[in-house]
Amino acid sequence: MRTAVLAAIGDELLSGVRREGNCAALAWRLHDAGWRVESVEVVPDDPEQVIGLLRRWVGRTELLVLSGGLGPTHDDRTRDALSAYLGSPLRREDALYDRIVARYDGELRAALERVRSSQSLVPEAARGVYNPEGSALGIVFERSGTQVWSLPGVPSEFAAMVEGALGGLLLPAHRWASVVLAGVPELRAVERVPEVIGDPGLHVSVLPSFASVELIVRGEPERVRAAERLIRDRFPDDALPEGCATLQEAVLHEARGRGITLSCAESCTGGLVQGALTAVPGSSEAFLGGVVTYGDEAKRTVLGVVPGILERHGAVSGECARAMAEGVLRLFGTDLAVSVTGIAGPEGGSAEKPVGTVWFAVASMKEGTVRSSAFLRNLRGDREGVRERAVACALSALWRSAGDERQFMDLQERV
Amino acid sequence: MRTAVLAAIGDELLSGVRREGNCAALAWRLHDAGWRVESVEVVPDDPEQVIGLLRRWVGRTELLVLSGGLGPTHDDRTRDALSAYLGSPLRREDALYDRIVARYDGELRAALERVRSSQSLVPEAARGVYNPEGSALGIVFERSGTQVWSLPGVPSEFAAMVEGALGGLLLPAHRWASVVLAGVPELRAVERVPEVIGDPGLHVSVLPSFASVELIVRGEPERVRAAERLIRDRFPDDALPEGCATLQEAVLHEARGRGITLSCAESCTGGLVQGALTAVPGSSEAFLGGVVTYGDEAKRTVLGVVPGILERHGAVSGECARAMAEGVLRLFGTDLAVSVTGIAGPEGGSAEKPVGTVWFAVASMKEGTVRSSAFLRNLRGDREGVRERAVACALSALWRSAGDERQFMDLQERV
Repeated sequence: MRTAVLAAIGDELLSGVRREGNCAALAWRLHDAGWRVESVEVVPDDPEQVIGLLRRWVGRTELLVLSGGLGPTHDDRTRDALSAYLGSPLRREDALYDRIVARYDGELRAALERVRSSQSLVPEAARGVYNPEGSALGIVFERSGTQVWSLPGVPSEFAAMVEGALGGLLLPAHRWASVVLAGVPELRAVERVPEVIGDPGLHVSVLPSFASVELIVRGEPERVRAAERLIRDRFPDDALPEGCATLQEAVLHEARGRGITLSCAESCTGGLVQGALTAVPGSSEAFLGGVVTYGDEAKRTVLGVVPGILERHGAVSGECARAMAEGVLRLFGTDLAVSVTGIAGPEGGSAEKPVGTVWFAVASMKEGTVRSSAFLRNLRGDREGVRERAVACALSALWRSAGDERQFMDLQERV
Repeated sequence: MRTAVLAAIGDELLSGVRREGNCAALAWRLHDAGWRVESVEVVPDDPEQVIGLLRRWVGRTELLVLSGGLGPTHDDRTRDALSAYLGSPLRREDALYDRIVARYDGELRAALERVRSSQSLVPEAARGVYNPEGSALGIVFERSGTQVWSLPGVPSEFAAMVEGALGGLLLPAHRWASVVLAGVPELRAVERVPEVIGDPGLHVSVLPSFASVELIVRGEPERVRAAERLIRDRFPDDALPEGCATLQEAVLHEARGRGITLSCAESCTGGLVQGALTAVPGSSEAFLGGVVTYGDEAKRTVLGVVPGILERHGAVSGECARAMAEGVLRLFGTDLAVSVTGIAGPEGGSAEKPVGTVWFAVASMKEGTVRSSAFLRNLRGDREGVRERAVACALSALWRSAGDERQFMDLQERV
């Protein structure tokens, strides 16, 4: 098995200012192509530490990919570290740099010319790598059987250069399958499929999320297929359809399959349910739009929630959730609509309705008749946590309602 | 200076299935409290590797924090690794586990009892740590001058246990300041404040984002304050107000300061602009709500965009963007509104309007008169990238319009 080590360079990653994403994404691609990733490390913008990393791994792994430290600012010092490690002075790689500069004009081009004397440098014993997305050159060399690729850390640049320069190393070798179970706790998921979990020929990852758990199974193709079938058989009501990795994909899959149109009314989630739905390419076929009604007045004037409901039950109530869902269903003329209204915090909670109290409703139009059904959740977490959990519950309700008439009136139990 | 090493344990992190966030967040807190984080590592769910990590760092750092591998499933093997490393058999920490089980009931409680024989285990030479958010115990011990904390990897549990158990180690020691510059490229930001970048007494991180760049300055309090003043002086029009780390916070800061109400109409961003605004606690004071009109018909029926505009100019046009902003302004009765309409891809582009073509408009109501102003951006990236960049542009336009009348008609140049 081919082995790889990935390292991200940058003080901002060690001080927590930024989260490492490049190596994580590359690890996935490598794993899929049959590589074993031995380690992922984050090291500071310090040439000594980068040299230490190279000494630790060169000769002990086939592939070593470094992310970051090649930009134009003072804290970008990977280039110097590579030069010192190789004992090879820096030279200008003007032809490659020219190709990059030629893509820009005006103030940006002038700025790139000003930093040419540092930005175009590559160790004599190495080769420059063209950057199709940004201005920093990559650097590649081989030593003691290890290919070392040093690429810029800006995520879009790193991704483009991985696809381009490393593309040939990334062809898939073994198979994997993923099954997402909506509304199933991690422990229950694991307990119901002991044969899969216990199979020494499979590698199973169990990844709990807000309102779902994902099982990722990797291994020999035939075995992976059998494991996936078994998991789906044990969770007939909860497994998202094949090819759907997220609740929003499942919602749109069902809606498109049945020719149903969707809309959405949000209060405490403030647009995030719709943001999740529209993240799926082609979502406009089924999702027509929706409304964010943050204040009571907007709930009345835009969605037609009658004042009596707000006065008697308040905006965070099953009655208001149903009126919002029915209102947005009529406003956009869709077959199905979901609504969310709750208290995300940190302010606004009370003894009766503490932070995390969220009402959901689904409304459906069938043969000219509107029906609706509401359910309540007491969600944990801070503002962000409550909002993320609420988005997952709303999508789950929409998925169950779009896919299965039977589940519609039973959301309190099912979601 | 006190030193720390952080390590995340989990195959899912090495295979890229999940992105490491716990150590990144803790590194920030430690850095702020004056610790030097020497390394952040990701290692697989393999006891040998965890033992190797302990051997590498124990005795060479004051603090070693491990995240992950303490859950109830087959791939959680940190507990065994710690026991083997310490040469200390596992014992049941029943009293602590009882406190955890007592928080649950029904099916979950029964499940926790079933896994008691593994989940309550702690090496004899170590101490268990109560988990206020989940069921896995933490483990702590000291050896050769190194405190080793092993905490569960579920983000909410890790965070709660860091605040609780490690809280005392995290009191701030030195000062930092952050200035966010809207619409300023990274290179220009750095070139205009050479004194700050070149000051050996300061540590400056330069963090470019979609439509802004953040400068984070750390060091001795007096020096940090002077550096922040200097940066703000050089960028009077572009620096977000003090205390605002994001464009959405700046929008709401200005709106609340001037008593202005806001609404929003989105097409290709599908709710994300509103999602960003409502992520800010207390946003309901200024943000009343908005609309997602994904299809043309919704633009007509909900926002009152006249059919002639859609026929003559199309939905992705300055005319449509202005009509959407004016429409949502009237619908919600707000002082200011922003709209976004564009092509996020991957489908829907044409030679004339390629993927990434996005129109924005701001509408304002003053003394009974509605004015509006539109601008165009050609944004780079895939669907997600275009949407994220568009959200940043919309927020930037809203911020400039809310804060400064002069900038309102000049958005094409300013944003």
